[in-house]
Amino acid sequence: MNKEIDVRICEVGPRDGLQNEQTPIDTAKKVAWINQLVDTGLTYIELTSFVHPKWIPALSDAREVVRGVKRKQNVTFGALVPNERGLERALEAGVDEIAIFLSASETHNRKNLNQSIDQTYTTLLKVINEAKNAGKSIRGYISMVFGCPFEGQIHINQVSSISYRLMEMGVNEISLGDTIGIATPNQVEDVLRHVSKQVPLTNIALHPHDTSGTALVNTFAAYKVGVRAFDGSVGGLGGCPYAPGAAGNVATEDMVFMFEGMGVKTGVQLEKVIQCAQWIQSIVKRNLPSHRLQMALAHQNKGGVK
Amino acid sequence: MNKEIDVRICEVGPRDGLQNEQTPIDTAKKVAWINQLVDTGLTYIELTSFVHPKWIPALSDAREVVRGVKRKQNVTFGALVPNERGLERALEAGVDEIAIFLSASETHNRKNLNQSIDQTYTTLLKVINEAKNAGKSIRGYISMVFGCPFEGQIHINQVSSISYRLMEMGVNEISLGDTIGIATPNQVEDVLRHVSKQVPLTNIALHPHDTSGTALVNTFAAYKVGVRAFDGSVGGLGGCPYAPGAAGNVATEDMVFMFEGMGVKTGVQLEKVIQCAQWIQSIVKRNLPSHRLQMALAHQNKGGVK
Repeated sequence: MNKEIDVRICEVGPRDGLQNEQTPIDTAKKVAWINQLVDTGLTYIELTSFVHPKWIPALSDAREVVRGVKRKQNVTFGALVPNERGLERALEAGVDEIAIFLSASETHNRKNLNQSIDQTYTTLLKVINEAKNAGKSIRGYISMVFGCPFEGQIHINQVSSISYRLMEMGVNEISLGDTIGIATPNQVEDVLRHVSKQVPLTNIALHPHDTSGTALVNTFAAYKVGVRAFDGSVGGLGGCPYAPGAAGNVATEDMVFMFEGMGVKTGVQLEKVIQCAQWIQSIVKRNLPSHRLQMALAHQNKGGVK
Repeated sequence: MNKEIDVRICEVGPRDGLQNEQTPIDTAKKVAWINQLVDTGLTYIELTSFVHPKWIPALSDAREVVRGVKRKQNVTFGALVPNERGLERALEAGVDEIAIFLSASETHNRKNLNQSIDQTYTTLLKVINEAKNAGKSIRGYISMVFGCPFEGQIHINQVSSISYRLMEMGVNEISLGDTIGIATPNQVEDVLRHVSKQVPLTNIALHPHDTSGTALVNTFAAYKVGVRAFDGSVGGLGGCPYAPGAAGNVATEDMVFMFEGMGVKTGVQLEKVIQCAQWIQSIVKRNLPSHRLQMALAHQNKGGVK
């Protein structure tokens, strides 16, 4: 990790945020927005997803987005890939890092990927090996870590065993997702301590959701346990795929505000992130759930209090 | 404290929530709503404010509200009073507990109360003595504890000295308010540890605001330090008086969700509180910032996922 920062904020808005947005957005606008994000000090930006456009039409311009953004030293540009075909397209477009995914919930994994977790390992191993051969680092998302809409609670051993398996397969960073935003801080501590027996916390990131308003408290709990990488989405873009209308991804700026307030250096410029949030809110034309954005807008309208 | 609960949730919605709402609400509806709140298991409900109706027309029916609600054993009904005249009206209406207030910020105190903090002590002492003589317990709110829109940072010694002074004057519970929602968890820990040198934490409550999305993380931090009383407002009713449109009071149901998820007993029934939030949202006719309410509504609309 960059020695000048204490935690690494991983920006997933252009992928995880936009994939759930209904408003079609021009590629040129996406690229302009990502270029703004690059200037905030963020060091990881997940640009898009190379899943089949049939599944996520909003990201069907994946290649053009990857090719369009300006590159910057020390900023890693990632993209999600579901399989070898996606990997080929991602490599051809020229990403720095490959993100793969599976679910901690057998039922959700089958519904989402149409295969068992064991079958998914086979797919992922091929993708990981090819990506490694191409010199790429790998990020692995595990969803439903803290609870699943189909299975309810997920056994803590299931989370650590999947995490360990991914690390063995060569994944560099494993992002544990609170996909339905149901985690409470004690649970985050318990899961992370359990996982840390098999996978060093330096290889773990937290992907909190704010559906229950607990994204920052769970972030804080994970930080206290020793996690140093956190996923956010500018503006809180994305929502909750399992509860349309409710909050999903935590706003990057809310996370940066908390950490900087704690004296924990993120390397990210809060005001610039808020500007990016304001910009994308004007594009998607709905009020985003970001607290610091709405506070900034309220102050602008009032022309006053800081 | 009731031995069957681990933390006490203090419901301030009918006072601190409604005082900022623009929609006029019939007294009968307020009373019906408070009666619902009484059935959730909450043990403190702040019913209204006996400030002059000129200042808060929304609460000009204070007397009728206090007289209208059904009483229940083990539920304390409080009301805010600014001065002796307010106290008289509150006592005459029949409240159980008196809430008084001042600001940790000299500038804000002068703007809000038109007197210095020292002058306010004189006013409050009279109110406290009279209330004590009438056999009432006293709750004291200190606002702007973690930052002020006029003064910026508030010195930690200022907070502990005001807290100590209030305790000396006979205040039973002192609620420290993050009025502009600017606190971060480390600051909450620092302030509380400092205050606890002069005032036992058993006499301290936290009044978090969610303007920056940090209400629950600050609640968690305060709990870890040893605070066991927390103020919430059903639905997150109230907003931020210093940033209209932004979030203010934390939703009681979000707080209950977090604590119960942590195995910390609140004695409050989450589903019933969410019903109260849904009810008042239908009255004020705007989407309230409560996460658990919006999640519940999203699931209702979808007819599915729990």
